[in-house]
Order: sequence, then structure tokens, then C-alpha cells
Amino acid sequence: MKVTLNRDVLIDELSTVQRAISGKTTIPILTGVKIVLTEAGLTLTGSNANISIEVFLSAADEKAGLLIEQTGAIVLQARFLSDIIRKLPEKILTLELQENNQVTITSGKAVFNVNGLSADNYPHLPVIEQQNQFKIPARLLNKLINETSFAVSLHESRPILTGVHFVLEQNKLLAVATDSHRLSQRIIDVEPTDQQFDIVIPGKSLTELSRSFKDEEQMVEISIMENQVLFKTENMQFYSRLLEGNYPDTNRLIPNNFNTEIEFNVPSLLAAIDRASLLSHEGRSNIIKLAIDSEQVVIYGNSPEVGNVEEVLSYNSVKGDPLEIAFNPDYMKDALKAFGNIDIVIKFISPIRAFTLQPTDDAYQFIQLITPVRTS
Amino acid sequence: MKVTLNRDVLIDELSTVQRAISGKTTIPILTGVKIVLTEAGLTLTGSNANISIEVFLSAADEKAGLLIEQTGAIVLQARFLSDIIRKLPEKILTLELQENNQVTITSGKAVFNVNGLSADNYPHLPVIEQQNQFKIPARLLNKLINETSFAVSLHESRPILTGVHFVLEQNKLLAVATDSHRLSQRIIDVEPTDQQFDIVIPGKSLTELSRSFKDEEQMVEISIMENQVLFKTENMQFYSRLLEGNYPDTNRLIPNNFNTEIEFNVPSLLAAIDRASLLSHEGRSNIIKLAIDSEQVVIYGNSPEVGNVEEVLSYNSVKGDPLEIAFNPDYMKDALKAFGNIDIVIKFISPIRAFTLQPTDDAYQFIQLITPVRTS
Repeated sequence: MKVTLNRDVLIDELSTVQRAISGKTTIPILTGVKIVLTEAGLTLTGSNANISIEVFLSAADEKAGLLIEQTGAIVLQARFLSDIIRKLPEKILTLELQENNQVTITSGKAVFNVNGLSADNYPHLPVIEQQNQFKIPARLLNKLINETSFAVSLHESRPILTGVHFVLEQNKLLAVATDSHRLSQRIIDVEPTDQQFDIVIPGKSLTELSRSFKDEEQMVEISIMENQVLFKTENMQFYSRLLEGNYPDTNRLIPNNFNTEIEFNVPSLLAAIDRASLLSHEGRSNIIKLAIDSEQVVIYGNSPEVGNVEEVLSYNSVKGDPLEIAFNPDYMKDALKAFGNIDIVIKFISPIRAFTLQPTDDAYQFIQLITPVRTS
Repeated sequence: MKVTLNRDVLIDELSTVQRAISGKTTIPILTGVKIVLTEAGLTLTGSNANISIEVFLSAADEKAGLLIEQTGAIVLQARFLSDIIRKLPEKILTLELQENNQVTITSGKAVFNVNGLSADNYPHLPVIEQQNQFKIPARLLNKLINETSFAVSLHESRPILTGVHFVLEQNKLLAVATDSHRLSQRIIDVEPTDQQFDIVIPGKSLTELSRSFKDEEQMVEISIMENQVLFKTENMQFYSRLLEGNYPDTNRLIPNNFNTEIEFNVPSLLAAIDRASLLSHEGRSNIIKLAIDSEQVVIYGNSPEVGNVEEVLSYNSVKGDPLEIAFNPDYMKDALKAFGNIDIVIKFISPIRAFTLQPTDDAYQFIQLITPVRTS
């Protein structure tokens, strides 16, 4: 293997596959990046127990400027390789495989000899048949992920809840996540397709996936096999394992009849909740209280040791019964951040029943649910 | 106490005194900031075992916009106060002392009530007579600190070496620090003065001091008492304790006769050392090797498990005997960073004797010393 190429392009691609590489794995070869050079170009692969990422630098890519002298393959320790390449003196570098799995990295007058491992020993990635495909723009997929994945459970007591449930049917793609204290569900209309699926993807995989798209305008091809999903763009293949088991029926959790409804602008409500949470974070229970009556809407935070806060809130409109309800401000902050800068309506049944948050614009098929904290 | 003022100005001043406030102190009141309001303005004080910082916001300061309704004093938990003020909704805020040491913080519709402690219980700062003063521009003082303080010892086995030794005599100010493996000494000429001193200031105090000057053009007045030093600017008083004991005679450590001399441009040498250290950091001994002969100058780094690096160095000129010497690259990197973008000469006696680094421009009275590592 011998290739000369642009340093910055290689740094960029390495940082993508490094998302799948952990320094802490018990399988030594997985701390490495697999480098495969063919006449067509350079493929980099990183992998861990949950995800695998493969990127491809085409020989035709002018920016990468690949000069391929001899094909071959090797596995190099990823973090170390990345440190070296970042510090090279020139804009181009040469990688050359020597005997005994040593690779010489040359740039300007700097010459590194780095010990590698045989690429033959690198685990094979799953083979996914390129059928059952479904296409979606990266931007839309990222939005769906950001609107739901924050609500997955971080505890392994119910593993299925650590994933986001995706259901494709009838030209709609639904994504829902819940940790049993709060829920976030978004539905988007998609191009007519005869595909359908019902899968649960680990929240952590989705977070890494959403950070891996360099160009949000590109299309992402989603293919599914028994226990794997592949997200494919022009030069990246992102594999994630799927979670096994039945996702709970979240539809029945969403209430329909309410007694109090109030409309807020998200950024101004978020700022007020954020202030109130400064006090609740100092206390043991971390709750804040919202009081709605015909005259005003007030938020309260209290921590006997350090002090208290109250703020009269601005709102767009309110209707229904007066209400006092307590909740975890961090769930509320997460929910509001997922909405962005829009107006929403919050609908309540009673102080002990979950309340819903939705954009005032119904076309936006997005609903969130937060379970209150019982006080008294 | 009741005062209305500009939020951003208060945030700024709070962040300065917070440099002296630790959340981990065993004396609860020292986690607080002392706030004293007089007709003249607002004084904030933070303190720990090593340093105390006092800043003053004048009633005449237009940007601060102090509206003083009633004078008074209180101590408020610093981190918490800072969090609250950063998140206030409006550009101005009002602090009002209530009964029981409670302070009400109001901004827009947000109202915080925060528990404080009586300012009477806050420890008194040392009283330093405003004589024995010496003035120096903040920019020059910062430069002196940055050129020396990195070389102090981080170990308490010889406490005196954790400080920087400052000697003012004969219109010269000398600063020197050493951890016994390397040394950095800088001398600056100062305005004629009949003052003289010989003190050791903790390295940590100096690091905080150098970050506390908002305006590097202002003059700093240095006053010394038995075991304290005060750095005073127009609106800040920075107190540090002094280290007790005799600083070793570092002059005798600096050699005079050399056998090999080589001139480098600092940034290009630093980049090469940085690359070589990638390998040495992976090994147990963390050393790199420099080989100088009549034909070339080469740097080597080696770590049997991961690989090796070698790089032919660019240099300006070389004279004297060939040499091979090994050293800790981190000491070299620290030394080079302290020089900035200039040319330096490195002078060697032998592979087992300390070598010196100096600007090629002699007018710059700056010398560093690094002890090599014996190999073989």
C-alpha cells in the first residue's frame, strides 16, 4: 500500500470514523481504523459494539488528491494516527505499508514509522442487502433525531426505552421516544413509498449519526436487515444495531381531553424555566411550580437553604380552569429546546395527569408529554 | 442596602473576584462574595487561603450606572449569585437587602430571594501600608509572569520552588523560577527607583493575577509587607501571600562555557518537537533525542510498542562539536512557547550537562535552562 493525499481531507474523514471508535474497547483491533486502498480509492472503517462507520475517498475526488502507487490494507491505532496527521508539517502526506505491518507516514521532512495490525484480522461488517430501501434528506432525518432522541431512557432497566421507535407506514414516518417520565413524538410525511418498517434504534447511535452528515442537503438511504440498519450517503455507510423487543404502545399514553390550555412563545418560556431551575437544582426534589389563574401565570422555584424565585410569565392566551402543577424543570427545558423558536400550546387535565406540549401550528405533527410531580 | 446597576458590568466584576473563590473551601463564608455598598460605590471581595481580590465599581462609572438608594453590606454565595445574574431577563438589576440577611434580586418580572450571610463575619483582608510602592505596566508584568511561572515546581516537597523569585535592585527587576529540572529567568529594566525587594510569590497566585487585568495598558502598583504582596490597579486590589524561606541561588546554575551552539527559529523547532513528543508520550521514559553533526540536525522520538519518528530540522546556524543529547520534550515545548516567535540560540556543554536557551537578541535578558536525561 502506498498513497499520497491531502492532509486536511484525511483528518476530516478520520474524525468521522472515529465516532465509532472507542479507546476503551476490550477488543484491541477495534481501537484501530481499518484503511483499505484500492484503485478506486481509500476506505476507512471504524467500529464498536453498537455502530460501524465506513467512509470512502474516491480516487476521482480532486480535493483529496489521491495519488495511488500501490493498493493494500492495514489497521492503525486511530487516536494516535489522528494526532500524528494533525501535526504533520505539510499539506500533503504519504502513507506507505512496509514489512511487519509497519506504516511509514511522511510529510515534509518528518518521517513516522507506526506499528499496525493486519487488516485480515479486522471484523467483517454486516452485509445488508440493498433492497428495502427508503430515502430521506439528511436535514429532515437530523431534525427527527433532534426532536426525539433526547427523550430516550438512559437506564438499562428497560433496554427497549433507550432507543427511538421508528415506524414507516402509509407514507408517514413516525419517531417516538420516552423514558416513562416524558415522551416526544414527531410524524413527518414522506414521498409515496411501498416500504414499511417498525424498528427501534439506540439513542446513542442516532446522536452519532446526526453528527456525521457533512452535507445536510444530501439524501440518506435507509436499509434494514434483521438486527441492523444501514444509513448510506454518497461516501459514508453508517451501520447501527437495532434494539430487540416490543416497543410499548405509546399512542394510548397521549390524552385527548383537557381542562386548561395556555399558549406560550417558546424562547421566553424557556428563559423563565431556566431561571427558576437555578433554585430547584439546589434542592433535593428539583421541582418547579406553575400556577395559572384568570389573572396571571406565575412560575415558582424554591430551595429552603438558598432561597426562592418567582416570575410572572408572559403568555399568548389561556383558557379553562385555574391550575397549580409541579414538574421537573429539566424535562420542560429539554422539551422546549426541541421545539425551537415557535409558539406552542400546553394542555393540562389536572395536577396529577401528564400534560401535552404541541406547536400551535397543527400541520407540525409534533407532540410531547411530561408527567408532573405530585406535591402536597 | 439597595442598588440598581448594569448586569453585564456586574457579571464582569464578579468573574474577577471569583478567581479567588473556591467552592471547596472548609470555611463556608469564603464560598461567598462580600458585597459592600457605600455612597462612593460597590466593592466586591473574594478570598481564599492564598489570594484575595477586591474590585470597586465607582458610583461615577457611567457604564455601571449605579443607582444607590441605601448603603449596606452582605455576603452571597458566589457561584450561585453569578448563575442567577447571568440568566436575568433584563440588562439592569436591583439588589435589595431584606431582613435576616436575605437579598432580593429583581430584573424585569423575575424576582429572586437569596439567603446571605452577615458581612460582619467575613474575614478582614491584610492591611498593607501604601509605602514601599513600585509601579510597572500590567502588560510588562504579565509578560514576566508568562515567561517564568510555567517553570515553578508543582510538588510541595520543596515549597519554595512552587513560587517565582522576584528581585528588584539597581533598576532591574529579575524573575526566576525552577522546578530543579528546568529554569527560566527574565530580567527587565525598570524606571529608576530607590525601592528594592526580594520575594517569592506562589506560581498559582501569579497565574490568577495575570488573568485579572482587564486593561493591559494600566499601571500596577506593587506594595509589599512582611508576608503579603498587593498588586493594585485603578479598580482592583489583588493580594497574595508570599512564600517563606530562602530561594536557592540560581545564578550559579547557569553555565558560561559551551562546546556546541545552534540557532533555531522558535515556531519551526516547536512544531518538530511537538511531533516527536507524540511518540515519546506513548513510551515510559518520555524522552526525545537531538543529534547535531556537521551535516545535519535530526530529532528522534521512539516508543517500541507504537513506532518511531525522525525529522531533519531546519536551523539558522550551528557551530562547535557534534553532539547527541536526550531530554524531556515537554520541558522543551514549555520553554519554546515562552519565547514566542523569535530566533534563539541553544548552547550545550555535553550530553550530561544542562543546556541553555536564549534569544539571539542579547538585549532581551531572558535565559532558560533544561537538564538533559542520561541515556545508555
